[in-house]
Amino acid sequence: MIDFEHGVVTLDYGSGGEKTAELIDTLLRPAFSNPALDALGDGAVVPAPGEQLAFSTDSFVVQPLFFPGGDIGKLAVCGTVNDLAMCGAEPRWLSLSMILEEGFPFSSLRRIVESISRTAKEAGVCIATGDTKVVERGHGDGVYLNTAGIGVVHTPGLSPAAIRPGDKVLVTGPIGDHGTAVMLARADLGPGFESPIVSDCMALHHLAAAACAAGGVRVLRDATRGGAATTLNEFTDGQSFGICLFERDIPVRPEVRAACELLGLDPLYCANEGRMLCLAAPESAPAILDALHALPGGEGAVCIGEVTKEFPGRVVLRTELGAHRVLTRLAGAQLPRIC
Amino acid sequence: MIDFEHGVVTLDYGSGGEKTAELIDTLLRPAFSNPALDALGDGAVVPAPGEQLAFSTDSFVVQPLFFPGGDIGKLAVCGTVNDLAMCGAEPRWLSLSMILEEGFPFSSLRRIVESISRTAKEAGVCIATGDTKVVERGHGDGVYLNTAGIGVVHTPGLSPAAIRPGDKVLVTGPIGDHGTAVMLARADLGPGFESPIVSDCMALHHLAAAACAAGGVRVLRDATRGGAATTLNEFTDGQSFGICLFERDIPVRPEVRAACELLGLDPLYCANEGRMLCLAAPESAPAILDALHALPGGEGAVCIGEVTKEFPGRVVLRTELGAHRVLTRLAGAQLPRIC
Repeated sequence: MIDFEHGVVTLDYGSGGEKTAELIDTLLRPAFSNPALDALGDGAVVPAPGEQLAFSTDSFVVQPLFFPGGDIGKLAVCGTVNDLAMCGAEPRWLSLSMILEEGFPFSSLRRIVESISRTAKEAGVCIATGDTKVVERGHGDGVYLNTAGIGVVHTPGLSPAAIRPGDKVLVTGPIGDHGTAVMLARADLGPGFESPIVSDCMALHHLAAAACAAGGVRVLRDATRGGAATTLNEFTDGQSFGICLFERDIPVRPEVRAACELLGLDPLYCANEGRMLCLAAPESAPAILDALHALPGGEGAVCIGEVTKEFPGRVVLRTELGAHRVLTRLAGAQLPRIC
Repeated sequence: MIDFEHGVVTLDYGSGGEKTAELIDTLLRPAFSNPALDALGDGAVVPAPGEQLAFSTDSFVVQPLFFPGGDIGKLAVCGTVNDLAMCGAEPRWLSLSMILEEGFPFSSLRRIVESISRTAKEAGVCIATGDTKVVERGHGDGVYLNTAGIGVVHTPGLSPAAIRPGDKVLVTGPIGDHGTAVMLARADLGPGFESPIVSDCMALHHLAAAACAAGGVRVLRDATRGGAATTLNEFTDGQSFGICLFERDIPVRPEVRAACELLGLDPLYCANEGRMLCLAAPESAPAILDALHALPGGEGAVCIGEVTKEFPGRVVLRTELGAHRVLTRLAGAQLPRIC
């Protein structure tokens, strides 16, 4: 019997034998039980209900594993759910693969698995298949997760190729929360210090579906690693149009702004894990914002800029003083292991 | 520009910014180019051509990364292709996620990526979507890979629940090659020593499809971690039937048998990465063996045992002397990090 209070992972749990079965039976199956997974084959078999499927994957190496507003498990579910949602798809099935380090406490593993289970239930997806490996002490970092996911496309054709000058740039809420929350959780700020910043980590598929239903959406993207500035650069790269952001309209919480100043970061380059960028036809933007405002996590949705024939190929910030600053892609690892 | 001869991976390459884009543009896209991946969205969109899909995932942590007959890249493609094939599905799309360690040589990374690309082409699957993370030096082991895959089910209903007493147990070739090849590659046997044992790592979907087309297949499984003995125990666990293997019929190469004796291993518990176990109706077994013999990698297919009402819930080996030995599941990590 696994001791979930004081036991630690040993290499045996990655062997594919008895101990692996014990781990599956006592922890993973109870946590994720659903018909596709319960069949316990080498893979899951799922019905193909739509015309087009979305398929996505992400590995998660965030440090620390637990942070205000989330943990690596919640992140692993939301990350792939959101990637599917940004494809205009309804997320349905996830795979879950874990690389555990010998010596990792089972108490932490259970906490992570429970978080995965809860987040998946809330998002309406099931863990259809999985895999576990264990590496020797000193060859990992507690736990690395991978999720892949399949979704059914409800809005085909979302693509940067659909962007036109005049389109509006919408964001579903304040930016920079996740990056600063994780950085503050990582910094040893001493006992008694409790950071007021909570990660924005959340599933975005309801917001994405509502925006698509309102019509006029060109492309959706969650602004994760590299932040909003880097994500928008992926749209303008090599194009005949540019994007102009209005600094005064970009929502940043005061505490996030303060933390960024303290840490030498720019909120526009901080990772978000629950913020969607939506480029949409100008006439559709008001209806999309109305739809977003009606949903949890979309209350703070605003227009932060527009697509323009000026500045072709570039993302530019119009400052509150009226000057223009070019926002290039993030050059290096501003925030390593943020997700 | 990435120096693929002498450069090493730095944290920047996992940032999601400029360096990540450079890695994608100079290495990954050229290697895997296909319409689904080239769209470079957060996930791939693929048509859903069948009624039922198979979905599978595996992470790969094998050491060493390169071994006779394969490498971690070939293993990562074959592993998921085979999991899908064992579901009675034709493998179509793979995702690829890499966790790289800071300091990992780009020359090795390129070698691995080229191996992935070659193996995927040979297996007729495309890498539809991907992700790359980098962890600090000392927090990984060069490279860990994850693949997930989607296949289209051609033979629904393959399941251990379909097994009946009298069914035959077939295997597509000699067992134990992969496990012993990797163990010998890991052992420092001194300069000038070249192991004669080559991993059996190969894609099994052609063999699986041929067996299914011949008819009468109950269940398919590739005998990876834990070996043939552990895999067969998954079928008999809690059942009213058992499986009896005939020792004299189990194909093991002489050099593998010798290596197993040297290393204190049992070929029945050694991992295979290109050997399929097929349980089939007795009247169908000859036709299935004929179909397997006609295909590369199936020339050595034989019947090694049968399902029996004796020994309910157990896998038993009838030795050449006529005695019976119970083959339990692998209890611990006989061969850690074998895949």
